[in-house]
Amino acid sequence: MSQEESFYIVPPEQHKQLVHDAYLARGYNSSEAEAAAAMCGNASHHGIRTHNALKALHLDELFGSGSGGCVPDAQIEVIESKFKAVQTWNAHRKLGQAVAMEAMNTCIELADEYGVGIVAVDNAFHYLWGGGYVIDAAKKGYIAYTNCTSTLSEVVPFGGKYPTLGTNPHSWGFPTCDAVGYPVVLDWATSTIAMGRVQQLKREGKELPPNAAIDANGKMTTDPNQVAALLPFGAHKGYGLCLLNELYGAVIGGSLPTLRGRADEAKAAGEKSTTAFYFQVIHPDALSGRDFSKNRSQAENITAVIKDVLGHGNENCMLPGTIEANNAKRSVKAGGLLFSAAELEEFAQLAEECKIDPALWSPQNLPLFTEA
Amino acid sequence: MSQEESFYIVPPEQHKQLVHDAYLARGYNSSEAEAAAAMCGNASHHGIRTHNALKALHLDELFGSGSGGCVPDAQIEVIESKFKAVQTWNAHRKLGQAVAMEAMNTCIELADEYGVGIVAVDNAFHYLWGGGYVIDAAKKGYIAYTNCTSTLSEVVPFGGKYPTLGTNPHSWGFPTCDAVGYPVVLDWATSTIAMGRVQQLKREGKELPPNAAIDANGKMTTDPNQVAALLPFGAHKGYGLCLLNELYGAVIGGSLPTLRGRADEAKAAGEKSTTAFYFQVIHPDALSGRDFSKNRSQAENITAVIKDVLGHGNENCMLPGTIEANNAKRSVKAGGLLFSAAELEEFAQLAEECKIDPALWSPQNLPLFTEA
Repeated sequence: MSQEESFYIVPPEQHKQLVHDAYLARGYNSSEAEAAAAMCGNASHHGIRTHNALKALHLDELFGSGSGGCVPDAQIEVIESKFKAVQTWNAHRKLGQAVAMEAMNTCIELADEYGVGIVAVDNAFHYLWGGGYVIDAAKKGYIAYTNCTSTLSEVVPFGGKYPTLGTNPHSWGFPTCDAVGYPVVLDWATSTIAMGRVQQLKREGKELPPNAAIDANGKMTTDPNQVAALLPFGAHKGYGLCLLNELYGAVIGGSLPTLRGRADEAKAAGEKSTTAFYFQVIHPDALSGRDFSKNRSQAENITAVIKDVLGHGNENCMLPGTIEANNAKRSVKAGGLLFSAAELEEFAQLAEECKIDPALWSPQNLPLFTEA
Repeated sequence: MSQEESFYIVPPEQHKQLVHDAYLARGYNSSEAEAAAAMCGNASHHGIRTHNALKALHLDELFGSGSGGCVPDAQIEVIESKFKAVQTWNAHRKLGQAVAMEAMNTCIELADEYGVGIVAVDNAFHYLWGGGYVIDAAKKGYIAYTNCTSTLSEVVPFGGKYPTLGTNPHSWGFPTCDAVGYPVVLDWATSTIAMGRVQQLKREGKELPPNAAIDANGKMTTDPNQVAALLPFGAHKGYGLCLLNELYGAVIGGSLPTLRGRADEAKAAGEKSTTAFYFQVIHPDALSGRDFSKNRSQAENITAVIKDVLGHGNENCMLPGTIEANNAKRSVKAGGLLFSAAELEEFAQLAEECKIDPALWSPQNLPLFTEA
């Protein structure tokens, strides 16, 4: 969180109620509204300001129930299959958060029996924040992974000129609570930076980092006003990881990336415009060779390895997931979710729409958060 | 391949015989020697000069049968488990290539039944080239993945000073032969560059790329003579991917990364010094939502997606795996494996050791390769 901004503490129940009601008002059923509220709250609890309730509802307006990309009250169809540890679902454009939560739970059930469980989802709608699902599974003791195709194609293939790839994120969660008190979580887009960050830098009159974006002529630019498309992180390696999601999507049922999230154009071309999800959970017992040094348990062995990695002068290094865990700690300490004044203003508007007293969301009526 | 060097064409059978005999001479049994020869030949066929037979035998001398890190004729022990789609093996330090080939085949068998198959391997020895195993599986029509912990810890955690991580590679293979004539293959270490590349740049008096290495004081350096440790590619994202292999290794049975590959120190500390492997195969049918646009088959859908990614002005972009595929095409065209004069000299020495006529490996007696 930026040090320049002030944050106000919102009771989790108040946030949950508003998000729930906002989804109900858009026609979603109560279990969908609950899933949405839970995942939005989870994101804010972990300090994920780019993927909070405001972003979720904005996505719904742009691509979701507002335009037919998401269908309230849709039913998940499990595709018949002879493969016992893998399921593929047709989500029929059901709300992403509800589908993703159920998919991860099904992966866990499959992993309990087979050691690994996979759920692939076709005809999906944005699941908001992949990190949330793998954090939950990792806290339950599992190794979890998800990827998805992003709604829009904003990323240029390595050496290319035109954005034909999504910002395609990957999220891994590892059961390291015993070792370090929280799950190790890798959770990032395969673009160097997000398009939202470009817009933020534009507002602030700041430059982009190098190798993050190109202009309309396909030339590298650090000027946010000239950005036409994003570049993958880490040159050809990040490009490969970005492409991976497109290939998973293609195998599952996604169609042309450049038409994804563009319902009208896709329809005119006879193509689908939906995204695809991939979820995977592994039971760590299934991977144990039961031959740990010094008779350590598996959990003790993970602790020893992490201690070695962060030893020898590396004590100040962070683990992937440390930032999210520290944010969560702060939320617990604050006793609520932290939002800026600008965010509260948007929530107040939303409250008005949902016939909830907007004064509840006024900074005057909420405690200011101060780091003790 | 460098344009400055000349390459000579070695008949695959001649290469196979020599590598096979070299492994037999080191005490390996004939099926191990065959696996080693097959994978070394596969690497050279795909133009992987950094992981050919010479590297494999060098590794064996440094860390393998020469020092007890690899045990000829060891038997794989399958750990008893209730999980049906995942197996964990104790390789008892059996030759990595033989273990990896068998592991990938077992993953395929499991995937045929369960949709996904995983084999984790504890007490493993270097499998040389992860790309080879996923290329083979992808050519058979499967989605394949492997990672392993690298023998030595040469990589510094993001923001750190001391190398506590392996160069830990990831390899993914996708069944895209119908779409583009070869598998899409992501196959790279999580360090920006390899230590072998640093040594090469030192010999050539050239600079490193930026953000690739640090000196003894933990400062970024581009001088190959000052390199004390390598940096992960792509800042915190590549660091996370590098750490991932350490966590898989920790779950499977690997001990402290800084003692890996250092048998004596590890023994003195009561720790293991072996690496760990992770293999995974998915049957693409298991992921199919059977709802492809325009009634395309799954393979046709993959083709359409790749065409879209490499369209719109991106026609000159490569796919991950293009270089390996082009090298393989060239080997086929040449009718043999391509080696430089310096490499042939090393092979000739090896031939002498194996009581094979070294003249067979003399550049004078082998056809020079010329690009038609």
